[in-house]
Amino acid sequence: MTQASICTIGDEILIGQIVDTNSSHISQSLNTLGIRVTRMLSIGDEHDVIVDSLTGELEKNDIVIVTGGLGPTKDDITKDALARLSGTSKFKTDERQLEIIHRILSARGLDVLDINIAQASVPDTCDVIPNRLGTAPVMVFRFPEERFGHKATLYSLPGVPFEALGALPDILEDIRKHNSISDIHHQTIMTFGIAESALAKLIEGWEDSLPADMHLAYLPNQLTGVRLRLSIYGGIKEEEEARIKAEFDKLGPVLGDYLYSDHDDTLQECVGRLLAGSGKTLSAAESCTGGLISSLMTSIPGSSEYYLGSVTSYANSVKTNVLGVDEDIIARHGAVSSECVAAMAEGVRRLTGSDYSVATSGIAGPGGGSAEKPVGLVWIGVSSAKGTETFSMIFKGDRKRNIERFAANALNKLRVILVNEVTH
Amino acid sequence: MTQASICTIGDEILIGQIVDTNSSHISQSLNTLGIRVTRMLSIGDEHDVIVDSLTGELEKNDIVIVTGGLGPTKDDITKDALARLSGTSKFKTDERQLEIIHRILSARGLDVLDINIAQASVPDTCDVIPNRLGTAPVMVFRFPEERFGHKATLYSLPGVPFEALGALPDILEDIRKHNSISDIHHQTIMTFGIAESALAKLIEGWEDSLPADMHLAYLPNQLTGVRLRLSIYGGIKEEEEARIKAEFDKLGPVLGDYLYSDHDDTLQECVGRLLAGSGKTLSAAESCTGGLISSLMTSIPGSSEYYLGSVTSYANSVKTNVLGVDEDIIARHGAVSSECVAAMAEGVRRLTGSDYSVATSGIAGPGGGSAEKPVGLVWIGVSSAKGTETFSMIFKGDRKRNIERFAANALNKLRVILVNEVTH
Repeated sequence: MTQASICTIGDEILIGQIVDTNSSHISQSLNTLGIRVTRMLSIGDEHDVIVDSLTGELEKNDIVIVTGGLGPTKDDITKDALARLSGTSKFKTDERQLEIIHRILSARGLDVLDINIAQASVPDTCDVIPNRLGTAPVMVFRFPEERFGHKATLYSLPGVPFEALGALPDILEDIRKHNSISDIHHQTIMTFGIAESALAKLIEGWEDSLPADMHLAYLPNQLTGVRLRLSIYGGIKEEEEARIKAEFDKLGPVLGDYLYSDHDDTLQECVGRLLAGSGKTLSAAESCTGGLISSLMTSIPGSSEYYLGSVTSYANSVKTNVLGVDEDIIARHGAVSSECVAAMAEGVRRLTGSDYSVATSGIAGPGGGSAEKPVGLVWIGVSSAKGTETFSMIFKGDRKRNIERFAANALNKLRVILVNEVTH
Repeated sequence: MTQASICTIGDEILIGQIVDTNSSHISQSLNTLGIRVTRMLSIGDEHDVIVDSLTGELEKNDIVIVTGGLGPTKDDITKDALARLSGTSKFKTDERQLEIIHRILSARGLDVLDINIAQASVPDTCDVIPNRLGTAPVMVFRFPEERFGHKATLYSLPGVPFEALGALPDILEDIRKHNSISDIHHQTIMTFGIAESALAKLIEGWEDSLPADMHLAYLPNQLTGVRLRLSIYGGIKEEEEARIKAEFDKLGPVLGDYLYSDHDDTLQECVGRLLAGSGKTLSAAESCTGGLISSLMTSIPGSSEYYLGSVTSYANSVKTNVLGVDEDIIARHGAVSSECVAAMAEGVRRLTGSDYSVATSGIAGPGGGSAEKPVGLVWIGVSSAKGTETFSMIFKGDRKRNIERFAANALNKLRVILVNEVTH
């Protein structure tokens, strides 16, 4: 199987000033092509470190993709290091990139300086893939088998994400042309409402019976639940995907309501699809979640089709004056109660005229808890023409985590009710 | 200078399913402590790869911080690899972590399974720092000089960002106790509303005149603006901090309204302080930002003191029926207009009785734009007893980025008005 390593060059990543997102995108593309990424590495702008690290990566991998370390003020270090690594000290000018440099700078109304022209200069040992989106070209170094014990190729891309990702299709094309690649096949399914360990216990028998060539991964996430991914390397696409699907199909009855999607997904997208598919609308009344449910729902393009809006009733006066919650309810049961959250859900549904509504009231912390109503307690209400249901849950986390869990669990309760009402 | 490497373990990063944000946070913390991060590495869940890679990192660094590869399910083999690396095959149970496991699971109403109990089991060669936020403990392996030619320490943290970052203070404390680290002194100030390159141009003269021992870093962030950090290594704390403060004080008149804080801060915290300090209250009416402003304001503990609530008026019917925006305004000027956002701001202030309100209406994209009102256009309104002001801005980004910029700029407009009204 073809193996690759992805290496970023730049002090700005090492000091934590920017998060490296290029590697993740490049990795996804390589995986789709059936290439296994064995390592990702970030190193600083130092000649010797670059030469030593890339030598190490080339010894262990067929393909090394380098991003960063190229730019008008700093590309000398990376380019010199790549020249040394490839055994040359001679440079050549790539006329195609030089033309692009002139075009880009003149479009921006900038003069073409010597440091700009120097960007078209590359070690004479490399092939060039012109970078149409920026001034630094992509360099391709092809090392013969004698050098590292196997044929190896190094691609050097600019670090600017827009340019790196823009150059990626050309690089994938070049990789496909020069390597015989076996495919990878995988599928992800989404669960919510069950902890990773309990899920593992629940599907233990299924997992133990998986064919030896299938690899299972658990990928937990606060807002979307635990993802399960099955992968197979090699084989014929349709056949292997059908085999994976057949294994996941067996899990359906075991997972029941915990399962919410047979592909990479979020709770808000799932809720959005259920609403859009049935022509129903939604509103929200948020206390402890403070707008997060609304923010998640509206993060989806096109959500205005089914999402009408929300009231964040942080103060009790907003609960009573805007949502119409009876003052007596708050006085008798408190704002964090089944009665209050039901009245909030009904209130916002009446106010906006939506078919469904979801409401939250809880104690996110750090302060504000009591023995009876501790920090981490949330009441969730879901209302529709069929009635109003409420649920309570307790979580243990800091304020941010509690708020996220409250919101995710509210969306999940809504999802389960929607599945039953709109699809049955 | 003490050198460190940060290593993440997990196939989910290598296949690009999740982006590694832990390394960036850890790197920032280590830098603050005066430790130089030389490499970041991501590797897969494979025993031999883990042992070989970590050996390589320990040979070249004083400190190696590992995240991920710990969890109750079967794809985690990090512990066995760490046992082998540290020359043991024996495990011990950490009673403190076991107690935490019981406490966390029972708080969630979950049974304590064998795989949960197994998480408190660690190689008998390590020290344990209990993880109060999750079930997997932090393991500390201290290697004597003989092993790698220098004293080396490996810290193994869980991969869940909440837990990894939660454990970080304890780890930094341990690092400080066991290493002689030269002090680093620094201060951060916050700017908003000016791009990094324009800021660099504006303060060029000041930057050029900085003493040679002071290092300036630009740290741009979408939601909080560009942070500026000045650092000095060594010296006496009080003296060096006073020198840094004196330099930053010179910047005040240059930066004007761009400057919003003389310490690490967020716009919502700054707005919250201004409100709390003056006894004023706030509400929000959000269209395109969909609840994000409300979510940011309520992320602050104690925000119920000054934040009353919001209306997310995603549908025009909610703008008219709940916020009382005149239908004529929308018919004549459209929902994305100065007139509509002013009416929204005034409507929510009337509805909640707040002293101040902020409102947004814009086009986040990807669809919905026109030549006259393109994707990326936002109208922002701020209302108080002194009147209502509106502002329009245009940004160029994807939906998520646009929504974040709309919200941050709305908070910033509110901040500038609050500074003038409540402090003058």
